[in-house]
Amino acid sequence: MGPHPAVAAIRLAVRRVLHDILNDQPAPDANPHERPTAPLVLVACSGGADSMGLASALAFEAPRLGVRAGGVTVDHGLQPGSDLRAAEVVLRLRELGLDPVESTVVAVGREGGPEAAARDARYAALDAAAKAHGATAVLLGHTRDDQAETVLLGLARGSGIRSLSGMAAVSGRPGAARRYRRPFLHLDRQTVRKACMVQSLPVWDDPHNADPAYTRSRLRHEGLPALEKALGKGVVEALARTAQLSRDDADALDAWAGQAESSVRDAAGLLECDKLYALPPAVRRRILRRAAIEAGAPAGSLFARHIEEVDRLITGWRGQGVINLPGKVVAQRQGGRLVIRQG
Amino acid sequence: MGPHPAVAAIRLAVRRVLHDILNDQPAPDANPHERPTAPLVLVACSGGADSMGLASALAFEAPRLGVRAGGVTVDHGLQPGSDLRAAEVVLRLRELGLDPVESTVVAVGREGGPEAAARDARYAALDAAAKAHGATAVLLGHTRDDQAETVLLGLARGSGIRSLSGMAAVSGRPGAARRYRRPFLHLDRQTVRKACMVQSLPVWDDPHNADPAYTRSRLRHEGLPALEKALGKGVVEALARTAQLSRDDADALDAWAGQAESSVRDAAGLLECDKLYALPPAVRRRILRRAAIEAGAPAGSLFARHIEEVDRLITGWRGQGVINLPGKVVAQRQGGRLVIRQG
Repeated sequence: MGPHPAVAAIRLAVRRVLHDILNDQPAPDANPHERPTAPLVLVACSGGADSMGLASALAFEAPRLGVRAGGVTVDHGLQPGSDLRAAEVVLRLRELGLDPVESTVVAVGREGGPEAAARDARYAALDAAAKAHGATAVLLGHTRDDQAETVLLGLARGSGIRSLSGMAAVSGRPGAARRYRRPFLHLDRQTVRKACMVQSLPVWDDPHNADPAYTRSRLRHEGLPALEKALGKGVVEALARTAQLSRDDADALDAWAGQAESSVRDAAGLLECDKLYALPPAVRRRILRRAAIEAGAPAGSLFARHIEEVDRLITGWRGQGVINLPGKVVAQRQGGRLVIRQG
Repeated sequence: MGPHPAVAAIRLAVRRVLHDILNDQPAPDANPHERPTAPLVLVACSGGADSMGLASALAFEAPRLGVRAGGVTVDHGLQPGSDLRAAEVVLRLRELGLDPVESTVVAVGREGGPEAAARDARYAALDAAAKAHGATAVLLGHTRDDQAETVLLGLARGSGIRSLSGMAAVSGRPGAARRYRRPFLHLDRQTVRKACMVQSLPVWDDPHNADPAYTRSRLRHEGLPALEKALGKGVVEALARTAQLSRDDADALDAWAGQAESSVRDAAGLLECDKLYALPPAVRRRILRRAAIEAGAPAGSLFARHIEEVDRLITGWRGQGVINLPGKVVAQRQGGRLVIRQG
């Protein structure tokens, strides 16, 4: 008799990702005297059901594919006793057979709000752990439900399809662009919880997940259920599919804008208004956004309304003056050219 | 003393659209003996606050711009007494000074569910009325709140950014592509209601709008308020902005796919798989979708998962057989070519 369907589902998801990771590896040197070391894959584990399920599936699949499996738990130090919790997670991961396993303490700042600050600190710690252990990849336990919540959070920003594209199945930072993998992005939370239950894995419910002070928690416990009640049970799946489609669309349009940009600059490198005018608005606005960021406007403070105002220098020219953008960047039209620079 | 700010807002919105309509008009003939007749603009009015507010603003603005203003109300015959209601709306529109005003009875079919069937019948009737009266344009009372609901309904389909793009400010059918105008698409419902109140306009609350049997009604009264509670008050505005940005993005990508299509066909007009492979996924999938629709697949039944399956003939070729699409259309890969045709 095979494993429970939920356990089979989480294992299959991890197996697929491990295959991808192995395919991404550079071919081993042909030196017959050197045995290639098995690649190391870490799981980022909070002790919650999603990441404990992920750890269990990694522990099961990794040895079968010649991969070493380890784990990291991040202690955000935000709650009393979080150090004890972290020590407990380390024990549980070791019990699953993971090695190396480490707990890492981070200092959470304040920038961008409590959720963003905690996330930044967490990824910095995971990056450091991956580097220290020479890990090929770090697995994250985000599920399709997390993805749906992320899409709704992006929707609330109203800043276009890039913010609707949620989390990527594969992501990273410069120098390790494919470090993070999310094997459960297409699995629902219920399946992962079920897999933990049938494997009798002890899991921990982060009280933050139910704390209405957090936007994501309100969305999870009130917003999404109400939306499901109004729109039907397929909402989470539809949101996750929207993420994938939006990501592909945003990538294609970014590529188009990247290519078009050189064709709308004159010999001196200035943007020519009549050539910009001839582009589709979606492409033109992306070029304007890139130019503003290049001039020093912080991407996170540059909103759709800023770009629209700059766009009106092209599409609704009536002698407007200088437009002020975040980061002390100014945009103005001069002699048929658009000048965007530090003011 | 000027009008109440809400009244000023709805009038300004209508004035802008009337200006657009006049700018769209062909220049009058230079024949000095023929006086050009004033263009006629109709308002589609249910008697509800949104469309009554719209009618009042049209009645005020039209004469000032040399435009004739008329009205149509559609009796869907779905409720007892709907004929009396329609007669009452006709009276109210005449009291506002609109002329011509007519009520038109439609037979609502069943295709696509009750809301879609009512909408189809309504637009057919409005098209007929516009034609019969020689109207230049028909104004519709949809507000920013309606737009937000439409975006969420599109999101629930999970079929990509075109379905997130909501209602267009200007739309129409072949032969009258710019017939319908939505002057209130950037105004919130509350402003329009306020404008009705301060003008003492009697308005009617369609019981359908509060009937939880209708998806849109559930969304309006439960889904959106819960989402606002979780995400903050700006949600409606963010959704409306998402609609505009998604529409521009979808237009640009459709244009790209249209241009790219000819470059991926061989001399016999067949799609070449290696050339399709080289395109960004977002563009390739749009070309595949167009090809399926051209071969006879009904657009409404062609879902993202269908296109993804066809796409795997290009990106994940492992000798798959024929793929069945809606409308008895089949897709298969033969000798490096993709053949999509009636099966």
